[in-house]
Amino acid sequence: MRVPFENLCRTIASCLVVYGFSEDRAARCAHLIAENDLVGVASHGLNRFPRFLEWIKRGWTDPQACAIQQSSQGAIERWDGCLGPGPLNAEQCMSRAVVLSREHGVGIVALRNTSHWLRAGSYAWQAAEHGCPALCVANTEPNLPPWGSIEPKLGNNPLALSVPKRDGRHVLYDGALSQFSYGTLEKTARNHTLLPIPGGYDVKGRLTDDPAEILISRRALPIGYWKGSGLSILLDLLVTLLSAGRSTRALGEREGEYGVSQLFVAFDASLLNLAAKQEIERTIDDLHSARPVDGVPVRYPGEDLYRRRQENLELGVPVDKEIWESILKTGGHRADDRIGVDSR
Amino acid sequence: MRVPFENLCRTIASCLVVYGFSEDRAARCAHLIAENDLVGVASHGLNRFPRFLEWIKRGWTDPQACAIQQSSQGAIERWDGCLGPGPLNAEQCMSRAVVLSREHGVGIVALRNTSHWLRAGSYAWQAAEHGCPALCVANTEPNLPPWGSIEPKLGNNPLALSVPKRDGRHVLYDGALSQFSYGTLEKTARNHTLLPIPGGYDVKGRLTDDPAEILISRRALPIGYWKGSGLSILLDLLVTLLSAGRSTRALGEREGEYGVSQLFVAFDASLLNLAAKQEIERTIDDLHSARPVDGVPVRYPGEDLYRRRQENLELGVPVDKEIWESILKTGGHRADDRIGVDSR
Repeated sequence: MRVPFENLCRTIASCLVVYGFSEDRAARCAHLIAENDLVGVASHGLNRFPRFLEWIKRGWTDPQACAIQQSSQGAIERWDGCLGPGPLNAEQCMSRAVVLSREHGVGIVALRNTSHWLRAGSYAWQAAEHGCPALCVANTEPNLPPWGSIEPKLGNNPLALSVPKRDGRHVLYDGALSQFSYGTLEKTARNHTLLPIPGGYDVKGRLTDDPAEILISRRALPIGYWKGSGLSILLDLLVTLLSAGRSTRALGEREGEYGVSQLFVAFDASLLNLAAKQEIERTIDDLHSARPVDGVPVRYPGEDLYRRRQENLELGVPVDKEIWESILKTGGHRADDRIGVDSR
Repeated sequence: MRVPFENLCRTIASCLVVYGFSEDRAARCAHLIAENDLVGVASHGLNRFPRFLEWIKRGWTDPQACAIQQSSQGAIERWDGCLGPGPLNAEQCMSRAVVLSREHGVGIVALRNTSHWLRAGSYAWQAAEHGCPALCVANTEPNLPPWGSIEPKLGNNPLALSVPKRDGRHVLYDGALSQFSYGTLEKTARNHTLLPIPGGYDVKGRLTDDPAEILISRRALPIGYWKGSGLSILLDLLVTLLSAGRSTRALGEREGEYGVSQLFVAFDASLLNLAAKQEIERTIDDLHSARPVDGVPVRYPGEDLYRRRQENLELGVPVDKEIWESILKTGGHRADDRIGVDSR
């Protein structure tokens, strides 16, 4: 079924108020959550909302806490997230990085002790909306084995990079360091289908495209095998050291994944002159001109987000009926606003 | 055969003088080249030296040109490499980034119009020697197809990240965005062996671990399939825009791979307090404790470099006999200094 975006935002916000958010922060946080569905990343929007509420119930997210500046060293600042809601903390820190970039050419905020930000791409896109190329990265609890081991010690750290485009259809890379998320492995296993490429090892140490085998072995692959393993270690150390926050190792000592470390980097918009903006378009034209494998034109990273946003604004945002009805109940809204059911 | 490190440096330097380097710049550049062999990355040291000289002969590298600052915006500066020798330009720019980091917390130098830096890890390691976590990335000519295409449009951009350790055995990730370099594919194909994992597609579009098939199709894989494809596009745009330099697309319009764009980022050493330094050690201890697949203990990225450096300083640096003799001839040295031949 589809729900108008404004309705989706309002309903999520009502729930958040029930869970202790102030009205204005509930509205802002709801917007960040609903936007993930709006742009077509359903795995990180409403579908994760029940878990988001669970984190609050368990005390892993404090609905009223705000991020606080700990120290400043010119272009780089340290903030403490105080376990406030991840999306609000992340938005605030990328916003601060954009401000810092105006003064220093680059602005960096290293955030410790925060909650899951839901979708990395949200904050890189946010900076792009201000004309800034940007990057953000977070660590996670240990859930991938390092290369040469069968024991999870690495995080599938999410990483997003953005480059703004004048027409608002920004270039956005958004991906974690695992080849497939556990969510994808579980969904594929439930459907009794295989992965399109090998996604991990079975218990006998053989590469496999069978998600069920990987769920048993817990040996999912990082991107690039040993390369992603190394990248994960370095990105974790970088966000941990710069934020003076918890490492993946330290997160593994806790019962749940909270109090993570994140990094927000924005480059000043004025660094992109006319020639630079033209080069972005030329590079995209060049990608579009690449001979396709199967007749489907090559797309640039993030190309679909804008299209889906427009489509979902017009037709309503696809939502999972069961989750939608459960949050309608919590938030006290009624389902009158829905604008039709489709077959998705 | 093995050659003492000092001898290797001196011999390479003599060659560089013959090719138009000043004495002091020849010595410095030779050190950077020889160090790649010293730490065991033979593919990026002496083995690439004949090609390095070829670039000079073709006018793609100007032995006498130095990088010049183009503009400054606080923590970030733009430099023009003026087609000077890649290793010297890169060392100079990372050195400048370290200086900038002391004033601004982070220092970034975006370098345009430079030559191949040989090994990305050299410059991230250089910053680590000053106590700075660091990152550097470069673009390349197009040599990988974007996801969904069979036509090379992406660069296998090299990326290095470092985190300093007090004992000098720094953590270093150093890898390009292709799963295997064309050098590795060619070497493996010559030996008639298979890759340990799929490395690309054959002409029929099937994943294959046969390097010969990939050399025919020219469809080598980026790390993480569609993920590495996206990362390559974003990293290329980032280095291009920040340096106001040539993109991978623009490099593809030239006859050779020269005048590339690079980025050097250093974080101020004072950001790492005692607790941070302890967390680095704890993370490494945790990795070392991970249950291995095959009895071989897990290593952290860069762990072998220090060990190999010590070994090769003591026993001499392994070199390819043929290349060594050809540069001895060019440089006018004699082979008296070699300290024995081994079976490697």
